[in-house]
Amino acid sequence: MRVLGVDPGLTRCGLGVVDGRAGRRARLVAVDVVRTPADAGLEMRLLAVAEVIEAWLDRHAPDVLAVERVFSQQNVRTVMGTAQVSGVALLAAARRGVPVALHTPSEVKAAVTGDGRAGKEQVAAMVTRILDLPATPRPADASDALALAVCHLWRGSAPTAVAGHSGAPTAAQSAWAQAVAATRRR
Amino acid sequence: MRVLGVDPGLTRCGLGVVDGRAGRRARLVAVDVVRTPADAGLEMRLLAVAEVIEAWLDRHAPDVLAVERVFSQQNVRTVMGTAQVSGVALLAAARRGVPVALHTPSEVKAAVTGDGRAGKEQVAAMVTRILDLPATPRPADASDALALAVCHLWRGSAPTAVAGHSGAPTAAQSAWAQAVAATRRR
Repeated sequence: MRVLGVDPGLTRCGLGVVDGRAGRRARLVAVDVVRTPADAGLEMRLLAVAEVIEAWLDRHAPDVLAVERVFSQQNVRTVMGTAQVSGVALLAAARRGVPVALHTPSEVKAAVTGDGRAGKEQVAAMVTRILDLPATPRPADASDALALAVCHLWRGSAPTAVAGHSGAPTAAQSAWAQAVAATRRR
Repeated sequence: MRVLGVDPGLTRCGLGVVDGRAGRRARLVAVDVVRTPADAGLEMRLLAVAEVIEAWLDRHAPDVLAVERVFSQQNVRTVMGTAQVSGVALLAAARRGVPVALHTPSEVKAAVTGDGRAGKEQVAAMVTRILDLPATPRPADASDALALAVCHLWRGSAPTAVAGHSGAPTAAQSAWAQAVAATRRR
């Protein structure tokens, strides 16, 4: 499965493509950060980001686009631009029939580091280890986009908990747990 | 000048097209509200709204797209969807080379009613009078979209105040003042 993770933002928008599946190592395909100048018109900034996201969807043909779920509790100055970029990304995926998934920041942190309140540095360090990269992707928007993609690979592969059922873990659950454990051991 | 006003929203998105210029009566061209079901996927809702906005841009060929400036102080539950729809609208305009303008809710209220803190009913009533409509456009999203378009016609036509200059009003300023006054008298 190939996932395009998008960490939405107007000033910097992180994009990361990762291949993988439960129980297997995740592999980096591409990572970059789109920047738009603060003095450009809002609509031109959205257009610039949209065109790169569309090019990545076409070039890398991901099975899923994973976007950070935006909360308005975040920085009031930047959250509107973040939401607008996420809207533009979701639209581009919908146009191409690419399924989308939204993950909260704490879901991403928990999936990658085991701690839903992990700091940016911890996330970046784990992404570097999980993808076996020679250096930590910078700026943080790049590693955050990769973390989103990894989160989706691992969470998306895990079955949803069934209420009232508490038997042995399924094969997929075991594979997921093993993949997480294997990464931690490295 | 023709203005397409967009009152962004996922559940209901108001669209209103108005022709006019400073000192002249504004004329209704089209008004509608796009609805998307709350149980549809976010990306499919954005696609549905985007397709209607794009169709209106192509059919009505406005000179300007005027969108409400979204603030995150509004309802936390809905503001993210509102911002995402505004992003999609701005992108559609940028793609077509249609200039965009953002107006705050209080700017719209002040332009249409003379009171930046006017209620929704007051705005709807003034829009009905300004455009000489047989009935008030419903729901409020429809009259809000028209109010945005009227606001842009009137504000956009008025010259920006020049610091330190306090001479007689320009022809455009006078025309704007007359248009506002004429509407109030009716």
